[in-house]
Amino acid sequence: MTPIESLAQAGDTALLVSAQNKRYMLRLKPGDQLQTHRGIINHADLIGLPWGSKVFSHLGSSYLLLQPSIADLLIEIRRNTQIMYPKDVGFVLVTLGIGPGKQVLEAGTGSGSLTTALAFCVGSAGHVYSYDSRPEMQSLALKNLERVGLEAQVTFKTRDILEGFDETNMDALFLDVPNPYDYIPQARQALKSGGFFGSILPTTNQVSKLLVALHRENFAFIDVCEVMLRYYKAVPERLRPTDRMVAHTGFLIFARPIQGEALSEEPNILETNESETEETASSI
Amino acid sequence: MTPIESLAQAGDTALLVSAQNKRYMLRLKPGDQLQTHRGIINHADLIGLPWGSKVFSHLGSSYLLLQPSIADLLIEIRRNTQIMYPKDVGFVLVTLGIGPGKQVLEAGTGSGSLTTALAFCVGSAGHVYSYDSRPEMQSLALKNLERVGLEAQVTFKTRDILEGFDETNMDALFLDVPNPYDYIPQARQALKSGGFFGSILPTTNQVSKLLVALHRENFAFIDVCEVMLRYYKAVPERLRPTDRMVAHTGFLIFARPIQGEALSEEPNILETNESETEETASSI
Amino acid sequence: MTPIESLAQAGDTALLVSAQNKRYMLRLKPGDQLQTHRGIINHADLIGLPWGSKVFSHLGSSYLLLQPSIADLLIEIRRNTQIMYPKDVGFVLVTLGIGPGKQVLEAGTGSGSLTTALAFCVGSAGHVYSYDSRPEMQSLALKNLERVGLEAQVTFKTRDILEGFDETNMDALFLDVPNPYDYIPQARQALKSGGFFGSILPTTNQVSKLLVALHRENFAFIDVCEVMLRYYKAVPERLRPTDRMVAHTGFLIFARPIQGEALSEEPNILETNESETEETASSI
Amino acid sequence: MTPIESLAQAGDTALLVSAQNKRYMLRLKPGDQLQTHRGIINHADLIGLPWGSKVFSHLGSSYLLLQPSIADLLIEIRRNTQIMYPKDVGFVLVTLGIGPGKQVLEAGTGSGSLTTALAFCVGSAGHVYSYDSRPEMQSLALKNLERVGLEAQVTFKTRDILEGFDETNMDALFLDVPNPYDYIPQARQALKSGGFFGSILPTTNQVSKLLVALHRENFAFIDVCEVMLRYYKAVPERLRPTDRMVAHTGFLIFARPIQGEALSEEPNILETNESETEETASSI
Repeated sequence: MTPIESLAQAGDTALLVSAQNKRYMLRLKPGDQLQTHRGIINHADLIGLPWGSKVFSHLGSSYLLLQPSIADLLIEIRRNTQIMYPKDVGFVLVTLGIGPGKQVLEAGTGSGSLTTALAFCVGSAGHVYSYDSRPEMQSLALKNLERVGLEAQVTFKTRDILEGFDETNMDALFLDVPNPYDYIPQARQALKSGGFFGSILPTTNQVSKLLVALHRENFAFIDVCEVMLRYYKAVPERLRPTDRMVAHTGFLIFARPIQGEALSEEPNILETNESETEETASSI
Repeated sequence: MTPIESLAQAGDTALLVSAQNKRYMLRLKPGDQLQTHRGIINHADLIGLPWGSKVFSHLGSSYLLLQPSIADLLIEIRRNTQIMYPKDVGFVLVTLGIGPGKQVLEAGTGSGSLTTALAFCVGSAGHVYSYDSRPEMQSLALKNLERVGLEAQVTFKTRDILEGFDETNMDALFLDVPNPYDYIPQARQALKSGGFFGSILPTTNQVSKLLVALHRENFAFIDVCEVMLRYYKAVPERLRPTDRMVAHTGFLIFARPIQGEALSEEPNILETNESETEETASSI
Repeated sequence: MTPIESLAQAGDTALLVSAQNKRYMLRLKPGDQLQTHRGIINHADLIGLPWGSKVFSHLGSSYLLLQPSIADLLIEIRRNTQIMYPKDVGFVLVTLGIGPGKQVLEAGTGSGSLTTALAFCVGSAGHVYSYDSRPEMQSLALKNLERVGLEAQVTFKTRDILEGFDETNMDALFLDVPNPYDYIPQARQALKSGGFFGSILPTTNQVSKLLVALHRENFAFIDVCEVMLRYYKAVPERLRPTDRMVAHTGFLIFARPIQGEALSEEPNILETNESETEETASSI
Repeated sequence: MTPIESLAQAGDTALLVSAQNKRYMLRLKPGDQLQTHRGIINHADLIGLPWGSKVFSHLGSSYLLLQPSIADLLIEIRRNTQIMYPKDVGFVLVTLGIGPGKQVLEAGTGSGSLTTALAFCVGSAGHVYSYDSRPEMQSLALKNLERVGLEAQVTFKTRDILEGFDETNMDALFLDVPNPYDYIPQARQALKSGGFFGSILPTTNQVSKLLVALHRENFAFIDVCEVMLRYYKAVPERLRPTDRMVAHTGFLIFARPIQGEALSEEPNILETNESETEETASSI
């Protein structure tokens, strides 16, 4: 009994992977062609094939026809800027409570890496508002979203966020800008009370500045962390970590705006926060 | 101008956090009461309040009324078993391409930690099938799902998965069992070609065994990795990592079933896979 | 053929380890007694036994008689303060070039953890000068050194190091104080040109301040790093990392004072330093 | 007041570092020349200069004249093989109790990286015995030792260690071979009772095999760990980890041979060992 396979269809986003592990991301359109270093592939020849099929260029090179994961979308994005990577994006999504139907705000748009992940996760019932003052970045991000069919979930605003955001009552807000500490009152205004704030920063100096701003604006549940990902060579009889790894992408900072003052019995939210980390050791 | 706050409503899942950082997860029902060590709180008094409000028990202790993130749901789950934690769940979700509308299979159910995250992410347009041979575990998992209103997204099957799965053409499949290497043909049968397979295992010996089984069943894009999460003490003028951290939860293993043999030009998919990790260093 | 065993002798430092892994460090003296929770052991009964022997208290509890490693000495030290741990001490010793015959200066003394390691490594041909303004700390450190027979290698100076050091031309100098950035001119004066400077600091804010001071005083080869140590459960058929680990002890900072200005062709020693780290990837 | 500088002398090992951070290790001999890509430097011109001086090639390129640390010796070694790096060597030295006067055995010699560190640390009062069956490796290691003036501390033996070692009663023994598990009885014979055994292995499979052999030969205090070193960009106002790091060199395994059986009250030395790691959390 063969399992029923799902088939690649016009409009689908496809990932072609060569035998040399070169990757091509494309949105299938009947008349289009993919030109690779090892020959041409007609989209029309891919449409109707089961996902996971092996296909060939006109020069006979073989490729696997695959549906991309969010992680694939992030890695294959066309970029002008440093992008956010799957290890960080995954943890941001679960920590900010991103899922179907959520209203999410982000700034800056950048190349649209996090935008793509957010748009994918909120689905057609949710929405993403993405601010950036650089029109060329939003143009690139839009192309990246269109390539994977997620453009309907996103509204771009080309604006300096110092002026504030149009939206209020957002479920979550993420700042991927060099100086998030300059926009914390604006972020608070846009977030629902009890909503989720997140940011990513490369240096410890920036993290310290952001912490000051978050305390000043009475955010609670402030966490700073970093996600490290270590790959292994997947050889069963010689299992070992790879020789090198990414040592740093950025520090992640999370917080939640609350009503009024921090809890009065709470002498120092930092200490509480920290002891939490210690106490819930087995639950992190 | 005050932002419009969203209000807690009957049927919502709420997280109450005390000044001592003790956490209570509850689903709001007008007649119910929460009994804490520091007094009673009536659900009715919470319904209608803005999220992020400060509330008080009948003994005057204060609590913050919050909506939980997926990460909160995972950590606060009632458990009989080792559960999967946010750091691993986030990376699994993005790597397996989980999002609105996806059809996902998992075994075993355990306490329902990953089940909860999957049900949240696939939304009402998707579905989760969760297998476990232990009825008491599925009963606990169901209660955990009901507490957060996600039970409609999940179908439980109390069954030894050695007999195989009822479903085929699944977008993704995750095995959280001690011996996933015994069920790889069954997993292949249930997954769509090109779908996403994942597993988590605590020991290196189990990882080696699983790699052998995945190669035998012609899975491609096999990756082994581990996610490490390091928290910092969020004090701006004394920023530093916490003293201790979780060193290990499990190794994550990912793979994708493909049609026919692995690509013939591909002399050793392991090497290719590895060199990928090296080449795309800047993109991980 | 049995290998010739070396025997425990009067004056030797011994480590007794109980079946419950409780550890006792002692210096063997014929008339002395060790009192444990599980009975008394006479030093006289230990003297003359082969190292690695099993011995018994007067209540019949068993202990292993061992010679301590430097790591054991560090861990078993009597402490009033945060001490330096083997993972950091090992890297400091190799980076500062500590070995037989070296002249080394440290401040502050603290409980004498690093003092012990330095005294052990420089041997009778070298010497350690240890400054601390707190007489009670130096008294404790002296007792710790005497317990392991290393007191002859160390000269203590009870003094505020703001006044500078008596010594010049030191091979290496290590500052384990909260504000090393206040003593960099003094450190430079004490070190030989081209000597080795090191420090350990818990927070990123302190590291930034120290870097400013080192640049101001024209130190070269400035490195900042942290050493992480992950233990495994040593079960062959279930090999896996331990559940928890030490996440942070301190950042290590190293530098070398040079003659005159930094090299003129060197546009930015920081960049050079960094590219070195990258280039010599395979050699670190 | 200028500190008294120590001066470079004939016979000293020197490290010359260019403005481009290119490094040259040499032993100063009055008639010798160093040929670099940027010109020639006469050893005679270096002899008598203060360490830390800036010197120039005949083409005007500048270099710093420095004494190398052990870490420098290890990194600059001429190698035909994978070598041991400072992060691992430092931890091995403190864990094996290496210091002045110790008698140490190692196999294989390899390029002489660990040999160099051991020879440096045991000093003229101690000795290193280094076995390797490949004469060309020992020839290279000897050259490396001569270059830094440590050859008198080492005796090379060109021999298959399956035949055993000539030495007994060694303080410490380190196996850097692919199959240390085949030589554990030989290692036990060479070590003093209560001595220190260490090994480094790249794969988890090898570690499991070695653990089996160590248990079989009644070694106690078995530890498995790995040392990770993370560098930071040393810019005070933009402090952050470097982008990439070495993810893996090898797993370190340590153990100590004891007299007779493991302690009878000790139901499972592995568990004890592990709980030790947990209990002494704050002391590691």
